[in-house]
Amino acid sequence: MSRPVLQLASALALGIVLASCESRAQSRPIAQTPQADGFEQTLSNAKQSLDAQMNLPISLPVPKDAGGGFTHEKHKESAKLIYNAGQLYKLTDEEKYADYAGKLMQAYAEVYPGWGLHPAQKEQSPGRMFWQNLNESWWLLHVAQGYDAVKETLSEEQRQLIETDLLRNMADFLSDGSPKTFNKIHNHGTWATAAVGLTGYAIDDQDYVEQALMGLDKSGDAGFLKQMEKLFSPDGYYNEGPYYQRYALMPFVIFAQAVEQNNPERKIFERRDGILKKAIYTTIQQSYGGLFFPINDALKDKGIATAELLHGVAIAYDLTSDAGLLSIAETQGKFVLTPESRKVSQDISAGMAEPFDYKTMRLRDGENGTEGALDIIRASSDPNDLSLVVKNTSQGLGHGHFDKLGFLLYDAGHEVIRDYGAARFLNVEAKYGGHYLAENNSFAKQTIAHNTLVVDETSHFEGDTETGNQYAPALGTFSNGETLKITSAEINTAYADVAMDRTMAMVTDAAFPNPIIIDLIEGHSESSHQYDLPFYYNGQLTETNFELAAETTSRRPLGDKNGYQHLWRVGSGQAVNGSSQVTWLLDKKFYSVMSSVPNSSEIIFAEIGATDPNFNLRREPAFIIRAKSADGISIASVIEPHGEYNPTVEFTVNSHSIVKSVDHFENGSDDYIRIETKDGEVVGLGVSGDMAKDAAHTVDVGGTAMSWTGPYKLFHSEKHKTGGN
Amino acid sequence: MSRPVLQLASALALGIVLASCESRAQSRPIAQTPQADGFEQTLSNAKQSLDAQMNLPISLPVPKDAGGGFTHEKHKESAKLIYNAGQLYKLTDEEKYADYAGKLMQAYAEVYPGWGLHPAQKEQSPGRMFWQNLNESWWLLHVAQGYDAVKETLSEEQRQLIETDLLRNMADFLSDGSPKTFNKIHNHGTWATAAVGLTGYAIDDQDYVEQALMGLDKSGDAGFLKQMEKLFSPDGYYNEGPYYQRYALMPFVIFAQAVEQNNPERKIFERRDGILKKAIYTTIQQSYGGLFFPINDALKDKGIATAELLHGVAIAYDLTSDAGLLSIAETQGKFVLTPESRKVSQDISAGMAEPFDYKTMRLRDGENGTEGALDIIRASSDPNDLSLVVKNTSQGLGHGHFDKLGFLLYDAGHEVIRDYGAARFLNVEAKYGGHYLAENNSFAKQTIAHNTLVVDETSHFEGDTETGNQYAPALGTFSNGETLKITSAEINTAYADVAMDRTMAMVTDAAFPNPIIIDLIEGHSESSHQYDLPFYYNGQLTETNFELAAETTSRRPLGDKNGYQHLWRVGSGQAVNGSSQVTWLLDKKFYSVMSSVPNSSEIIFAEIGATDPNFNLRREPAFIIRAKSADGISIASVIEPHGEYNPTVEFTVNSHSIVKSVDHFENGSDDYIRIETKDGEVVGLGVSGDMAKDAAHTVDVGGTAMSWTGPYKLFHSEKHKTGGN
Repeated sequence: MSRPVLQLASALALGIVLASCESRAQSRPIAQTPQADGFEQTLSNAKQSLDAQMNLPISLPVPKDAGGGFTHEKHKESAKLIYNAGQLYKLTDEEKYADYAGKLMQAYAEVYPGWGLHPAQKEQSPGRMFWQNLNESWWLLHVAQGYDAVKETLSEEQRQLIETDLLRNMADFLSDGSPKTFNKIHNHGTWATAAVGLTGYAIDDQDYVEQALMGLDKSGDAGFLKQMEKLFSPDGYYNEGPYYQRYALMPFVIFAQAVEQNNPERKIFERRDGILKKAIYTTIQQSYGGLFFPINDALKDKGIATAELLHGVAIAYDLTSDAGLLSIAETQGKFVLTPESRKVSQDISAGMAEPFDYKTMRLRDGENGTEGALDIIRASSDPNDLSLVVKNTSQGLGHGHFDKLGFLLYDAGHEVIRDYGAARFLNVEAKYGGHYLAENNSFAKQTIAHNTLVVDETSHFEGDTETGNQYAPALGTFSNGETLKITSAEINTAYADVAMDRTMAMVTDAAFPNPIIIDLIEGHSESSHQYDLPFYYNGQLTETNFELAAETTSRRPLGDKNGYQHLWRVGSGQAVNGSSQVTWLLDKKFYSVMSSVPNSSEIIFAEIGATDPNFNLRREPAFIIRAKSADGISIASVIEPHGEYNPTVEFTVNSHSIVKSVDHFENGSDDYIRIETKDGEVVGLGVSGDMAKDAAHTVDVGGTAMSWTGPYKLFHSEKHKTGGN
Repeated sequence: MSRPVLQLASALALGIVLASCESRAQSRPIAQTPQADGFEQTLSNAKQSLDAQMNLPISLPVPKDAGGGFTHEKHKESAKLIYNAGQLYKLTDEEKYADYAGKLMQAYAEVYPGWGLHPAQKEQSPGRMFWQNLNESWWLLHVAQGYDAVKETLSEEQRQLIETDLLRNMADFLSDGSPKTFNKIHNHGTWATAAVGLTGYAIDDQDYVEQALMGLDKSGDAGFLKQMEKLFSPDGYYNEGPYYQRYALMPFVIFAQAVEQNNPERKIFERRDGILKKAIYTTIQQSYGGLFFPINDALKDKGIATAELLHGVAIAYDLTSDAGLLSIAETQGKFVLTPESRKVSQDISAGMAEPFDYKTMRLRDGENGTEGALDIIRASSDPNDLSLVVKNTSQGLGHGHFDKLGFLLYDAGHEVIRDYGAARFLNVEAKYGGHYLAENNSFAKQTIAHNTLVVDETSHFEGDTETGNQYAPALGTFSNGETLKITSAEINTAYADVAMDRTMAMVTDAAFPNPIIIDLIEGHSESSHQYDLPFYYNGQLTETNFELAAETTSRRPLGDKNGYQHLWRVGSGQAVNGSSQVTWLLDKKFYSVMSSVPNSSEIIFAEIGATDPNFNLRREPAFIIRAKSADGISIASVIEPHGEYNPTVEFTVNSHSIVKSVDHFENGSDDYIRIETKDGEVVGLGVSGDMAKDAAHTVDVGGTAMSWTGPYKLFHSEKHKTGGN
C-alpha cells in the first residue's frame, strides 16, 4: 500500500453547483424533506459561496495531475465557478457575477492555447486541461453555458479573446481535433457533441451546432441526433445500465434543452416518441430505496440524488408537470441553479408533490428494443417494497458484466440477494488512484460474482466482452398480473453447448403472508458439465435443511481463475433428497431459499475476499448450488421473505420457512413447479415452452395432469381460489 | 443446523402494550417524529387490538415450551392482555375491558395451582408457567397491575378466586417458594420483589409489600430497598452495563411508582440522592445514535426505544418536567398506556420538547462508586457526534466481559472502533434456541475480542469471572475541558506480573479540522511478554504506512484458545521506525490510527469467523499491534477522523491522514505524547504519574524540557495558543 502523501485537493473545489439543504445529523430525527424554500436556500448558499470565492486571487495551474489530483480538481472547480456565476447573474441580475465569470474565462483564454496534451494522458482519448478528453467536454459544457449567460456584459475584446482562444480552441480540439470520440456512438461522444453544440449556441456559430447534431461531416451518420437514436432503447434503457445511464443522461438533457430553446422547430423532446423524457423516467425506475440497481460497473452509493438527475428531474418536470417527479425532487433534497429547478422547489412548497409511481416493467434493451431487457418486478409502488430485478439485457459494452439471466432481490429497504457492483473506490487515491481496481475484471465482472448459472467454472462468453456484445437473450413473455408478475428469457450463446433459460416470478397467494419469488433456471446440454448457481445472500445464516460442514480452521480459495480465486470456500453440505434450503436473517426479517436440486448436489458456502492482496474486496457471503450432470440441469427455487425479528420489543416470529417442499415437473419444454407449505397448502406455477397465447399445455404432476393455456399459469392454493393470471 | 420445525409463536402474542406509531417505509422520507397525538393513537390502536382479541376464545395451554416457544409466548401474551385491559379500563372507563381482564385472570386462577415446575426448567431458578422464575416475576408484575386496575369491578367470588389461587399462589411461589432469587441482590431479585410488592398493593396485603421492600425476613438485609442501595452506583450506573441496566430498570421504576403512590411517606424517589432518577438518566446517557453502548453481554440493536425506557422516561418526566426527556420520547416514537405517558405525548404536541443534553461524564461503578467507572467523552451534545467510551468499570458479574481499559469510538452516527457485544440472536430458535451462543464465552467475552491490551494471548483474570469481580481499575483524574477531555485508569490485577494503565483523551486543536483521540496504553512488567493491542476498525482498509502482506490463498486461525481461535489471520506487516499507521473508509469519512510502537512490532490484520462451525459470528475486521518486550510496553496512538468521500457529488478530499508522526516520551511515571502534522504543527499532551493538582512535572522531549503542573496538560499547536486545560 502507498504511504500517505500530502493531500492537495481542496474542499473548496467542490459542491458549488449543489448547495445542499442537508445538515448535520441532529439530536432529533429530522425529515429529509427540503425546506419549503429549497431553491432559495440553494441560491443563497451559492451566492455566499461564490462571494467568498470571488475575493480569492485567480490561479490556473498548468495541467499536471490525473483525476482526483490538484490541477484536475482546480480546473473542475473553475468550470463550476463560471457556470454558477453565469446562473447567478441570470437569476439575480447582479453584474459582479458576470464580471467574475468573464475575468475567469479571460484568464483561461490566456493560457489554454499554450497547453499541449496532458502529461498524465489516458491511453484512450487524451485531453489538454485534463488527463482525458471526457473531462474536457464536461468542462466546456459548463463553461459554454456560463459564457452564454454573461456574454452580453462583456466587452468586445473580452468576447473576442474568450471565444477565439478558449471556446473555439477547445471546441475545435473536441470536434475536429478528436474525431474518433466526437463521432462515437457512446456517452463520451455525447459529452463532446453537447459541449460543442452548446458552444455553438453560446457564440452563435451554427456550424458547431450542426456538427454537434449531425456529426463532423454533418451527414447525420454521427452526432447527437444519432446518439439519441442509438444509445437508448425505445423504452429509454441505456445499455450500460442505470449507473452509466445517469451519467450519460446529463449532456443529453442539457443540450436538448438548449436545442429546444434555440431551435424549437426541431421538437427535440418529441423525437423518437419522447425518448429523452423516457430516459429520465427509466433512470428513476431503475432504483431501489433511492439507489440505482448496481448492475454492471456500478458504484452502489449512486442514486437519484446525483447532480445529473437534479437537472434531469427539473427538466422532465418542466416538460411533463408530473407531480410524482416532485416527490423524487423532495427525496433528492437538492436543487440546481436553473429556472426549472426553482419551479420544482416552488411547487413542492405549494404541496403539489405526489408519490412517484414505481412500476413493474420490462425495459427493452438495444436501439430497436430487440437485445434483451431489464425486467423490474415490484410488489407495489413503494420504493422500499419487495422488488426483483432480472438482468436479461445485452452485455452493456465495456462496462458490462457477464451475468446473463442474473437477478437482484430487494426487500424492506435492503439488498436481500445482491450484485457486487463494481470493484472501485471512486476518487480514493490510495485505492489504485480511484480507478476500477484489478479485482473489477478478475472478480466483479465474472459470472461467478453474480446470481446466475456458471458452467464449468467459466464465465459467460468465456469472459470476452466483444463476444458478449454480439448476443442478447431471447425474451419470453413479460406479464404483470395482480397475483403473478413474471418474466422469462433464454440464451444459447453464453456457453458453447449449454443453452440456459430462466423464469422468475413474484407470486401473491393466501398460503403466504408475503409475496414470494419463484425461480426456475435451466441449463440444457447433451454433454457433461458442472453447474454452479450462486446466491449472494445478505445477512446472517440461521439454518439449512442439510448438514453444513464449515471450514473452521483453514480456508482455501474455491478455484484459481474466472473469479473463483476471490472466493473462500467456507463450508459445504450435501442436499438431502434433492432439496436445499437456506435461511438467513437480515435486519428485522428472515429469508429462505428452498430449491429443488439434482440429487447429490453440493451446496458450497463462500465468502468474497480471497486472493485480495490489497484488501480491495468487500467481505460478502454466498451459497452456491453445485451439480454435475451429463444432460443438463433444472433448479427450481422459492425465495420466501418471512417472519420478524424485533429486538426492541423482544420477540421473534416465523423465523422458519413455511415451505415444506418445492418440486419441478416437466413435459417436453413445459414446466411445472409445485410448492407445498407445512400447512399443506399447494401453490403451482406452469411455465410454457411455447409461449403463444392460445397454446395448450399439460404436465403430469405426480399423477395429476395440470393443464393450462398461454405462456404461464399460477395455480393458487385452496385458501385462495380467486382467479389465475 | 437444525431442520426447520413448524413455527408456532404467533404475532398476535405481541406488541399489545406498545402500539407503535411506526409505519412502513414510504416513498417519501417520513420524519420519525411521532404524530402530535402519539398517545391517543397508541390508545386507539390498543383498543382496536384488544377488541379483536376479546372475541377470541380463551385458551391457556399447559406449560411446555422454553423461551420463544408456543406456550411461553401464549402466556406472555396473556399478561400483556390483562395489563392492557386494566389500563384501558382506567383510561376509558369502559367496563368491557375490566370484564375481560377478570375473565382471563379467573381462567388462570383455575389452572395455575395445578401446575408444578415447568418441564423445560432452566438450571438456575425454575418457574411454573415459564421455564424460568424470571419470566414468572415478569408475568406477575404485569398481572398485579391489571388486577389492581379492575378489582373494583369484580365480584367477591372472583376476587377471592383470583387473589387466592393466582396472585397469592404465584407471589408465594416467587417469595417463600424461591427464597434465593427473591433475596438476591440482582435484577432477577428485583423482578421478584417488584412483582410480589405490586401484588401486595393490589390485594392490600402489607405483608407482601414489607417482604418486597425489606426481604423475606423483613430485616432490610435484602429486598427492594437493599437492591436500590446495591445495584446502582451513586452515579446511577448498573454494573452489568447499559444493556442490562435498561432491563433492570423496569421493575425498579414500576414498583417505585407504586410505592410513591401508596406510601408517599417513604419518599422512594428521593432515596439515595434520587438514585432511580439518576439511573434513568444514565441509561439514556449510555447510548449513541439511539443505541446503547454494547459493552458486556449486549445485543447491539437495543436502544432507548425499548419498552422499559418508555416507562422510565415517562416516569422521569413526571418527576422532573425535564423538557430534554421529551425529545427522547420523540425519538422513541412510542407510548405506553399510562397517564404519565399521556402527559409526555401532550407536552410533545405542545411543542415543549428540547434536545436532550448528552454529556461528557464519568459514571462511577460500584455501590459506593469505588469500583472503577464508565467514562463517556463526547465532542458535543449531538448524539451522533464523535464519542469515546472508555470501559474502566468493574467486571459486571456473569454478563461481564474481560476488557479492562477497553474502549469504543463512534463518529457520524457509526461505530468506528467497535466492541463485538454479545454472541447471541435473541429469540431466534435456530441459533441455539435464542440463548447466548457458545461463541459468547469462547470469543465475545474474551479480551482479544476487545480494544484493549492482551498479554501472552491470555484474557484478563485468565478469563475467570469470579476473579474479575474482585478487582476494579484505579481511576485517574477525569477532566472535561473545552479542548481537552481526558480520562485515565490503571489496573495491576488483570495479569499476574503486568500492570496496565491507559489514558484516553479527546483533543480539539486548530492543527486538526476535527477533534482527535489520543490514546496512551502501557503494560508495566519486569519480565518477557507478548503484548497484543487490537483495534476493531469498522470499514474498508485504504492504506497503511508499512508493507502489508495479505494471506491471499490460505487462512489459519490466529491461535487456538482464549478467543484467538475465532480470528483468521488475514495479513501482517512490520512497523517501520516504530510507527504504524492504518487508514480506513467508513461510509463517507476516513479514519486513521497512527501509533508509536516498539521497534520490530508486527501489525496483524484479522477477521472474526474462524472456528465457527455454525456461522454464528459476524465477519468483522481488526488490526492488532503485536510486540514482544522484556520490560513492558507503551503504545501511543492518535485516532484521527478525516476527509470526506462523497459519491453523490463525486469528490473525495483529505483521504490521507495529516499526522506525520506520533512520539512518546517519558520521565519516570510522567508521559508526554508529541504529535506532528505534515504541516509542521506540533500538539503535545502531558500525562502525569502523580495526579495531584499542584504536582509539577517535566519531560525531556527531544532536547526540550516540557513542564506542567497538575494531572494533564495539553500543549496546543502554534496555530492555536489559547489556553491549556
